[in-house]
Amino acid sequence: MSFKHKHLLGIQALSASDILTILETAESFLEISAREVKKVPTLRGKTIVNLFFEPSTRTRSSFELAAKRLSADIINFSNQTSSVSKGESLKDTVLSLEAMNTDAIIVRHSYAGAPHFISTFCRSHIINAGDGAHEHPTQALLDAFTIKQEKAKFKNLKVVIVGDILHSRVARSNIFLLSKMGAKVVCVGPPAFLPIEFQQFGTQIDYNLDRAIEGADVIMTLRIQLERQQKNSFPSIREYRNIYGLTEERFRKAKKDAIIMHPGPINRGVEISSDLADSLQSIILKQVENGVAVRMAILYLLLGGKDRETSD
Amino acid sequence: MSFKHKHLLGIQALSASDILTILETAESFLEISAREVKKVPTLRGKTIVNLFFEPSTRTRSSFELAAKRLSADIINFSNQTSSVSKGESLKDTVLSLEAMNTDAIIVRHSYAGAPHFISTFCRSHIINAGDGAHEHPTQALLDAFTIKQEKAKFKNLKVVIVGDILHSRVARSNIFLLSKMGAKVVCVGPPAFLPIEFQQFGTQIDYNLDRAIEGADVIMTLRIQLERQQKNSFPSIREYRNIYGLTEERFRKAKKDAIIMHPGPINRGVEISSDLADSLQSIILKQVENGVAVRMAILYLLLGGKDRETSD
Amino acid sequence: MSFKHKHLLGIQALSASDILTILETAESFLEISAREVKKVPTLRGKTIVNLFFEPSTRTRSSFELAAKRLSADIINFSNQTSSVSKGESLKDTVLSLEAMNTDAIIVRHSYAGAPHFISTFCRSHIINAGDGAHEHPTQALLDAFTIKQEKAKFKNLKVVIVGDILHSRVARSNIFLLSKMGAKVVCVGPPAFLPIEFQQFGTQIDYNLDRAIEGADVIMTLRIQLERQQKNSFPSIREYRNIYGLTEERFRKAKKDAIIMHPGPINRGVEISSDLADSLQSIILKQVENGVAVRMAILYLLLGGKDRETSD
Repeated sequence: MSFKHKHLLGIQALSASDILTILETAESFLEISAREVKKVPTLRGKTIVNLFFEPSTRTRSSFELAAKRLSADIINFSNQTSSVSKGESLKDTVLSLEAMNTDAIIVRHSYAGAPHFISTFCRSHIINAGDGAHEHPTQALLDAFTIKQEKAKFKNLKVVIVGDILHSRVARSNIFLLSKMGAKVVCVGPPAFLPIEFQQFGTQIDYNLDRAIEGADVIMTLRIQLERQQKNSFPSIREYRNIYGLTEERFRKAKKDAIIMHPGPINRGVEISSDLADSLQSIILKQVENGVAVRMAILYLLLGGKDRETSD
Repeated sequence: MSFKHKHLLGIQALSASDILTILETAESFLEISAREVKKVPTLRGKTIVNLFFEPSTRTRSSFELAAKRLSADIINFSNQTSSVSKGESLKDTVLSLEAMNTDAIIVRHSYAGAPHFISTFCRSHIINAGDGAHEHPTQALLDAFTIKQEKAKFKNLKVVIVGDILHSRVARSNIFLLSKMGAKVVCVGPPAFLPIEFQQFGTQIDYNLDRAIEGADVIMTLRIQLERQQKNSFPSIREYRNIYGLTEERFRKAKKDAIIMHPGPINRGVEISSDLADSLQSIILKQVENGVAVRMAILYLLLGGKDRETSD
Repeated sequence: MSFKHKHLLGIQALSASDILTILETAESFLEISAREVKKVPTLRGKTIVNLFFEPSTRTRSSFELAAKRLSADIINFSNQTSSVSKGESLKDTVLSLEAMNTDAIIVRHSYAGAPHFISTFCRSHIINAGDGAHEHPTQALLDAFTIKQEKAKFKNLKVVIVGDILHSRVARSNIFLLSKMGAKVVCVGPPAFLPIEFQQFGTQIDYNLDRAIEGADVIMTLRIQLERQQKNSFPSIREYRNIYGLTEERFRKAKKDAIIMHPGPINRGVEISSDLADSLQSIILKQVENGVAVRMAILYLLLGGKDRETSD
């Protein structure tokens, strides 16, 4: 197993073999979180920073637990003030942090490209925890891990992603990853949220969920940002639900063993019916559980490389 | 020593023997916090979450230190946004957290019954850190621990609780606990804050502090929520102090060796005179210290059970 | 090596020999942060609290990492509410915290003298992390450590401190420290920010940076609090930069091997030109790195004393 990247900035830079390495490594970490003693000394004495410029509790907590279960020291550093909104000042903030001898910096930022920018001047391993509407690679990796758990393969799987594709970093990272692994991705959403240019990423585009869902193996629903509605770029909630909401009636058109995914948090009764969210086909909570294992794998592959060769 | 409960949701569900088990276990943990090295490996590799939907620094810190001294991993997760105010969405928040393989979730919530609701669908041990005006069991247990330290028994002790009984989860949990242990509880406060229905909990009711305090062994003063005054449900501060404030003159009517308690933070000169708060009879800081030991005991009894049998 | 102080409240109380002890101890800790495994068990089982009444991410993180690399348990306790603005209530807050058996409390407060006040009634070691416009001793110590690294001595070094001297706790602690160590300190700034009374601290005063910088070994620029400008106590930014900004032209008048320092965060193009901040002469990031080692040294000297004598 070899992983040659210094940073995890996005799925685009990874090969199919890189992705498989991460998923296989995550498998071995999944077992640790099921133990009585959920802790291994692998990254003892490493310093990891959760640097979140956007509010987040789930993703931050998932990384925090991943680091702690590997025995690393992790500190939370959230800065939502405007003083760091300019690139130059972001650079100073990060360089100051890194001067404290950090090993890895996990970055969430509202600007697409912020983690990449940071990686150009940092010595630490940079992990993208979501940048603007660009990428959210650990989410796509945990989604892939969960799909593989359920379907054992990616090749020729039909995956339908429904929602505000345009503004979703989750969608983008998933499109990149699933295409690389040989799945057939179909994106569905209101035209204002799904420009025809997305075809260039190797995905099919459809504005009709009832048609697109036929024969689907995986339906990935995205969170509707209700706050966007006020900006008039959005149909009414009721209209959205009628046309793009995942209802039981619609779900019946998918394959019999189709699974339902969502990156959370859910708007029950909007993008997904409450009953479907709680159904046996929904693997939403498995996604969350796998997220810790996938993040442990990434921290391990990026930071633990040297120890691994010498001690394992 | 046996403790069969999965959760700690309130005092009401505990037997006198359960309470004694917790207090005796806490005794053994009190010594750990007095050591040079305040740390034992008991809960190494356990994942505990401080899930606080109301602001809190004291109780949160007390649980955080209790977990750390037992070598558990603890993460803080505070959510004071309105997005989690509905039951269903609270359920999703907690299920997502638990999917990360938590062992215990410590919950504070402004809604009475929230921890109980959470316990109905969770696999983790749920600990109530205060729910609305319902219960605050760890506060009552640390109060009981402190009373036992000072008085060596509960039987026939006269405990006077003074203040806004109606809105106080501390009062309620203390009434339940002290009645179970055989103490005589007298509640005192302005009529608007002390409905006659409280008699059903086995407590005596009095609107006259000067009379009620006679022969008291313990006087438990409650924090007056100054912000409530604006809602006109409250006499003026001066009036409150005159009638229900614990002054030295009033305190002289209690037993000679009576002790003064308060759950903190204190409004000096309102519910208690500043001199009395600092007097030798005041055991307010002992309550805080004992709080860590009691919370260590609860975490240990709920989470450490199996280890205990094999290793102790 | 001996260090007899119980608290670190300010530089004023330290002797030159105390300062050297801290700097020499820090040297041995600098190496730990450069290791693969940045962790030693020195303070295992100690409880340290970051008690910050003013917002801070850098200093707080630096102390947090220092504590974690020494294996201590540290909790963050920030209180920016007004409820703790009165001295008496600050006392209750701190006594409650300390009742949880803290070993050290690191205090930042907007009131000059708050850490000293706290030390009068606390059993824990108190470390001043910045109090009003009074002192910021760990900043001065890390600055001294960095100067010693670069210049190997203090005696007769010419150190120019530029900026809002009057309101700067960093300036004050540095003036005290550098004077004690035999350096020649020159303070420079607009007259409104540099009262003639500062001469009593053994520093020279100059209102002309072009003149003062001649022959300087060290130029320490201070952060301009842009928010003060609105209060009219401040010239315009442009005017400030023209007269007191550190430009390349001005810097050429200093000694050839002069170094540039700044406590951060920098206002690029205001108190210092962007190019100078990034130049080889700038040791701003070294200051940050050394900050962790100096804080480890202070925690060790205050808390680890007994262990040291017996085990080293």
